[in-house]
Amino acid sequence: MPKSLSRRTFLASSSAALATFAAMDLPQSAGALSGRNAATSPSTAPNPDWKGKAVLDLSRSPHAKLKQVPVSAVTVTGFWASRRETNVKSSIPTMRDELLAHGRMDNFLRLEGKSTAKQIGPVYSDSDIYKWLESVGFVLQSEYQPELRKTADGMIRDVVAAQEPDGYLNTHYVDAHKSERMLLHTQQVGHELYCIGHFLQGAIAYYRATGDATMLNAGIRFVDDFLLPKYGPGADQTPIVAGHPEIEMSLIELYRTTGNRKYLELAGYILHGDSRWTFDPDAITYMFCGIPFTSRTKLEGHAVRAMYACCGATDYYLETGDPTYWKTLETLWHDLSEHQLYITGGVGARSDGEAFGDAYELPNATAYGESCAAIGNMMWNARMLAASGEARFADVIERALYNGINSGMSLDGKMYCYRNPLAFDPATGDVIRNPWYDTTCCPPNLERTFAALPGYFYSTSKDGIYVHLYDASEMRWHLEDGTALHLVQETSYPWNGDIHLTVSPETSTEFTVYLRIPGWSATNAVKVSGESIEGAVPGQYLAIRRRWTAGDRVHLALDMTPQLLAANPAVAEDVGKVAIERGPIVFCMEALDQNPSLHYANLSDFRAHTKSGVSGRYEPDLLGGVYVLEHEGSLAKDEALGLYTPAGAVRVEERPAPLKLIPYYAWANRAPSAMQVWITAKA
Amino acid sequence: MPKSLSRRTFLASSSAALATFAAMDLPQSAGALSGRNAATSPSTAPNPDWKGKAVLDLSRSPHAKLKQVPVSAVTVTGFWASRRETNVKSSIPTMRDELLAHGRMDNFLRLEGKSTAKQIGPVYSDSDIYKWLESVGFVLQSEYQPELRKTADGMIRDVVAAQEPDGYLNTHYVDAHKSERMLLHTQQVGHELYCIGHFLQGAIAYYRATGDATMLNAGIRFVDDFLLPKYGPGADQTPIVAGHPEIEMSLIELYRTTGNRKYLELAGYILHGDSRWTFDPDAITYMFCGIPFTSRTKLEGHAVRAMYACCGATDYYLETGDPTYWKTLETLWHDLSEHQLYITGGVGARSDGEAFGDAYELPNATAYGESCAAIGNMMWNARMLAASGEARFADVIERALYNGINSGMSLDGKMYCYRNPLAFDPATGDVIRNPWYDTTCCPPNLERTFAALPGYFYSTSKDGIYVHLYDASEMRWHLEDGTALHLVQETSYPWNGDIHLTVSPETSTEFTVYLRIPGWSATNAVKVSGESIEGAVPGQYLAIRRRWTAGDRVHLALDMTPQLLAANPAVAEDVGKVAIERGPIVFCMEALDQNPSLHYANLSDFRAHTKSGVSGRYEPDLLGGVYVLEHEGSLAKDEALGLYTPAGAVRVEERPAPLKLIPYYAWANRAPSAMQVWITAKA
Repeated sequence: MPKSLSRRTFLASSSAALATFAAMDLPQSAGALSGRNAATSPSTAPNPDWKGKAVLDLSRSPHAKLKQVPVSAVTVTGFWASRRETNVKSSIPTMRDELLAHGRMDNFLRLEGKSTAKQIGPVYSDSDIYKWLESVGFVLQSEYQPELRKTADGMIRDVVAAQEPDGYLNTHYVDAHKSERMLLHTQQVGHELYCIGHFLQGAIAYYRATGDATMLNAGIRFVDDFLLPKYGPGADQTPIVAGHPEIEMSLIELYRTTGNRKYLELAGYILHGDSRWTFDPDAITYMFCGIPFTSRTKLEGHAVRAMYACCGATDYYLETGDPTYWKTLETLWHDLSEHQLYITGGVGARSDGEAFGDAYELPNATAYGESCAAIGNMMWNARMLAASGEARFADVIERALYNGINSGMSLDGKMYCYRNPLAFDPATGDVIRNPWYDTTCCPPNLERTFAALPGYFYSTSKDGIYVHLYDASEMRWHLEDGTALHLVQETSYPWNGDIHLTVSPETSTEFTVYLRIPGWSATNAVKVSGESIEGAVPGQYLAIRRRWTAGDRVHLALDMTPQLLAANPAVAEDVGKVAIERGPIVFCMEALDQNPSLHYANLSDFRAHTKSGVSGRYEPDLLGGVYVLEHEGSLAKDEALGLYTPAGAVRVEERPAPLKLIPYYAWANRAPSAMQVWITAKA
Repeated sequence: MPKSLSRRTFLASSSAALATFAAMDLPQSAGALSGRNAATSPSTAPNPDWKGKAVLDLSRSPHAKLKQVPVSAVTVTGFWASRRETNVKSSIPTMRDELLAHGRMDNFLRLEGKSTAKQIGPVYSDSDIYKWLESVGFVLQSEYQPELRKTADGMIRDVVAAQEPDGYLNTHYVDAHKSERMLLHTQQVGHELYCIGHFLQGAIAYYRATGDATMLNAGIRFVDDFLLPKYGPGADQTPIVAGHPEIEMSLIELYRTTGNRKYLELAGYILHGDSRWTFDPDAITYMFCGIPFTSRTKLEGHAVRAMYACCGATDYYLETGDPTYWKTLETLWHDLSEHQLYITGGVGARSDGEAFGDAYELPNATAYGESCAAIGNMMWNARMLAASGEARFADVIERALYNGINSGMSLDGKMYCYRNPLAFDPATGDVIRNPWYDTTCCPPNLERTFAALPGYFYSTSKDGIYVHLYDASEMRWHLEDGTALHLVQETSYPWNGDIHLTVSPETSTEFTVYLRIPGWSATNAVKVSGESIEGAVPGQYLAIRRRWTAGDRVHLALDMTPQLLAANPAVAEDVGKVAIERGPIVFCMEALDQNPSLHYANLSDFRAHTKSGVSGRYEPDLLGGVYVLEHEGSLAKDEALGLYTPAGAVRVEERPAPLKLIPYYAWANRAPSAMQVWITAKA
C-alpha cells in the first residue's frame, strides 16, 4: 500500500450484494470485490466462496469433529423467534441510535472531516460499532433487510475511511494519542487489537452475509500492512500482547476465511505470549494472556478476557490439534463447570476487576455475571462442542443462553443488563437494566448473539447430523457427503418437553441423527416412526443410525419435571438453599409476584419445602408468555423471637406461604422488585 | 452585638484555666469569663459552676432517674485504659495532623486572612474540627495535658475568629455561597446547624474541662444573635429543619449548661418540625426530621441522622417528661433491638444512603455499620438508660462499645473504619481501615467517645449508685445526698468474669449499689463481704441495699461461657449460621488464623459444630492482648461433588477443621485477610 495514498482513497464501495435470507437460495454477489475495493484489495484475498458459511467456518478445520450449520440454513419459528424479531425490530435500531447519540460514529467521521465533535468514549469504543455491524451481518445472513443493509453499508464506508494509509485503524490513538500506538502499556490496556478483533469478526459476518469485502479487506490491510511487518516474534519486531484477548479467535476466523496460514500462526504466537515482555502476576491474572495459554491451570482474572482467550485457544486447537491446548482447555473447562459456573450459566463472580473469584466463590446479590462473559462462555463451549462432539458443552451453552444471556436484554429489547445478579434488592438503589452504558460492550454483544443464534442449533459430522438446541425451527442444509437434508422441529420447547422432528433427506440414505439428551432430563422417551429407541442417557447424544427417508418422524419426550437443586456446600451463600429449574429454564422469585397479604420483610424470608412438588402453568399474557411455577413454601419470620438467641434453643413456627416463580431471564421487566434465585430450603 | 464590630473583635482569650485531671481536685478556673471574652460575652451566660459536670449534665433534669457520673470522677486502669492512652498519644495528635494537612483549619484561617488556601472539603468539614476539639475537651476532663490544651486553645481562637458580627459561623457558606445560608435546600443538606451542634458539644466539653467559655460564648452568640431572632416558629421567622439531626441534643445540653429554657424550647420546636415546610417522603425518611418526631414508628433512613434524632428526643424527654416522646422512643428502641441491631451493636445495613434497611435486613459483607452510627446508638442508649434505669439499654451500650465501636479504630490508633462489616473478603479490593476519609466524621467521633468513656461507667440515683460497665477502675464521686463515695473495681474483664468492688462511702450509710447483670450472663454469683446475695437476673440490675461501710467488698462472678448464638430466621444471611460470643465480646474468624494446610477456598467453607464446646485462652502477645477461642469445626467442601445436584440426594463427607476466633474489634489489624462473624453451623 503506497504511503502517499490519502485516507480518502480507502472509501469503500456501497454497491455490494443484496442480502441473503436463506443459504439454499443465495443471490449472486454483485460487485463484492469490484469497484474501489478492487483498487485497494489487500495482499491477502478473502476466499471468494463467501456463501453458506457458518458462524465458525469449520468446513476445512482438521480437528473439528462437528461442523456448524450456517445461520442462513436455519429458520427459527418458536421461542427464540420472538426474541430475534425484537432484536431486529427494536434492539439493533435503538442501539444504533444510542451509538450515534453518544458520538461513537463521530469518532470516525471526525477523521474524515465530516464531524467536528471531540473524540469521545472509552478507548474501546470503536469495538461497539464493530459488534453492532457484526449483528447486522448475522441478521443479513437470515433476513432480507435492505434498509438495515443500507445503513450498515454507510457506516462501514465511514469506518473504513478512517483507516490510515499504513493500515492502522483506531479513532482513539490519533492526534495527541498517536504516539501511544502499540506501546507496551497501550497493548496491555489500550484495546487496539481488541478493537481490530471485533472489526474482523464484524467484517467476516458481513462478508458471509453479503459478499461485500469492504470491511474485510480493510481488516486484512490492518493485519498485513500495519501489524505483521512490525510486530511479532522476530528480532526486529516489537512483541505483541493481546491485553484483552479477542484478536486470537478473529485471526483464526480470518485464516478460515482466506486460507492464509499466517493468521493462524500469528494467533498461535499471541496465545503463546512473547517472553521478551514480562508482566507482573496481577496483570497476567487479569489479562488472561502474556504467558503461554497452555500454562494456565484455572480460570481467573477478567472473565470476558478469560472466556475470549479460551475461544481463541479452542479455535487454535481446532486448526492444529495441539494436544497441550486440549489438555489445558479441559482443565479450564472442569474449573468452569465444577467451581465457577453460576446456575444461570453466567461467569465472573466479582465486580472488582469484573473477575472470576476463587473456586466456589459464587455470591448472588453481588454476582457480576457480565452479559459479555456469559456470551463468551457460550462461544467457548460452542468451540469445545465442535472439537469433541460431547453434549456436556451443549448443556453449558443451553444453560447460559436461556438464562444468563437471555436475561441481559429486556423483553422489549431496549434495555440491557451489564451485571446479571442472582439476587437483587431495589432498595440498594441499583438500576439493573439501562438503555446505555458508557462501556456499552454488552448490548451489541447480545445483539450479535441473538442474530447468530440459528448457527448454534445444528452441526454436521462425518456420519450425520447433530441436534444441539430444541426450538420450533426448520433446517435446510446438507450432510457432509452433500446429501441435501431438510429437518423440521415442531415443539413448544422450552415450555413443553415434546419435540417432533421430521427428517427429510433428498434421497433415502443411511446416516446418524444425534439427539442431545440434556443433562437435566432424567427420564427420556424417544421414538422413530412410532418405534421406541433405547439408550438415551442424560448429558449425552443419542445416536440414531438408520436409513432415513423423507418424512421420517422422531419424537423426543424430555423430562420437564421441575427440579430442586442444591449447590455444592462450598458455595457459601447457597448453603441450605435450593434453586428451581424446569427444563433449561432457571426460575426466580420476584417480590411483586408473592402474596402481599403475607407481610414478609424480605424475599429471603421465604422457605421452599423440599419434600413437596412444584406445579406450574403457561401464562400467555405474562412477560411475553412464560411458564410460571408455584411451590409450597413458608415464612419463618417470628415477630416474638429476639434478634439473637442461643443456637438450637428455639423452634420457630412457620406460616404457609406459597411461592410463585417466573423464569430468571424475565426478571426486572415490570416494576422494580426484589428478586432471588436461591431460596432457603425447609426439609 | 453591634453589627459594626469587625470579625477581629471576636478573638478569644487564650489565658484560660489549666486543665483539670480529677474532679475531686479541680483547680480554680482562672479568667474563664474574663478578658476579651467578658467584652464579648453573650446575652445568655453559661452557668458558672462548670466543674464536675458529666457528659450529660442531668443534675437538674426532672425526668432523669439516673444522673451520669463525670468523666473526671472515674479513672480507668483496665481494658479501656490502653485504648484511651492510644487515643490520647496516637489518635488525637495524628488526626489533628490529618485535619491540618487536609486544610480543615485553613478554611477558618482563610477568613482571618491567615491562609490563602481555597475552601476545601465537604460542607460539613467544620464539624470535624469541632469533634476533634470535643475529644480534647473530654481528654482534659481526665488528664493534665498542657501541650494539648495549648494546641486546642489556639485552634479555638482561630475558629472563633471566623465568626461573623451577627454570630454566624460556617466556613463553607461564605463568599459566593453566602447567599445560600439557611435556605430551605441548605437547611436540608447543607449541615449548617449540624456543624453548630458539634460546635456546641465541643464547646461544652471544653468548658466543663477548663472553664474556658471562649467557644461556648461563641456558640451562644450563634444561637442568640443569628439563629433565634430570624428562625423559628414565628410568623415573621423562617422555619428550621435540622437536615441532619444533631442541633437538638446540643441545644438541650446548652440549656443544661446555661439554665436558659429557650434552648430547650428551640430543640422541641425542631424535633416537632415546622409544618410550613413540607418534604417529600424520601427526604423525610432519609433526614429523620421534618415531621414530628413523635409520628415516627420505625427506624429508617440515614442511620446517623436517626440515632442523633433519637438522642435529641430522649434529651427532650429527660427535661420535659412528655409521654408521647417516651412512647415513640420505646417503639423505636424495640425496632432497633428486635429488627435492626447487628450483633456487634452496629446499625445501618445499607451503604446506599448509609441507611437502615427493612426489618431483619442485616447483611454481613455489605453491612454498612458506620462507626458514627454505632456511636450514635451508644449515645442514645445512654440517654434511655438515664431516663429509665433499665439494664436493657446498658446491654446495647456494652454491645456497641466493645464491638462495633471499638472495631472502628485500629489498635495503633492511626487507622479508622468508616464501614464495620461483619464479613470481608480482601479480594474485593476494599481497604477497610484508612488514616483519612474526605468525609472524616468517624475518626474524631471515635476519639471523643473513647475520651468520654469514663463518663459512661456509673450513675447515681436518688437511692444509690449504678454500676453499668465493668473494667478495672476507680470512682471518686458522691451520692446524691452528697456523701462522698470511693468505688474501686478490680477485674480483668472482659477476659475474666470476676469483678471485685470495694465500696467506700466517707461515712457508713445505707444506700443501694445497683450491679448490672448483663443479658448475656446466664448464671451469676454475687457476694457481699463473703455472703451470697440472691436475685441476680440477666438483663437487670441487682439492687443491693444495705448499710455500706468503707472497705466493703462485693464479688460478682459473671458467666463467661462462650455462647453460640443464632439470628432470628428472618435474617436472611444468617440462616443456618452461628455467631460466637464470650462475655461482651463478639468473636470472628480471620482467614490468617486458620490452619493453612486445610486448603479451604473461602472462609465460609468452615462449619461450626453446634453440639460441642468452645475452649479459649488469653494470648498476651496477640493483638495487644486478646482472648482467643478455639472451636470444633469441619470443612464440607467436596471436590468430587458437582456444582449443582438434586436437593437432598447427596450427603457430603466433612473433614475436621478446628476454628480459631479472635475478638471482632481486633480484626484487620494484621495482614489483609478474609473475615466472618457468622459461621455456617453443623448440628
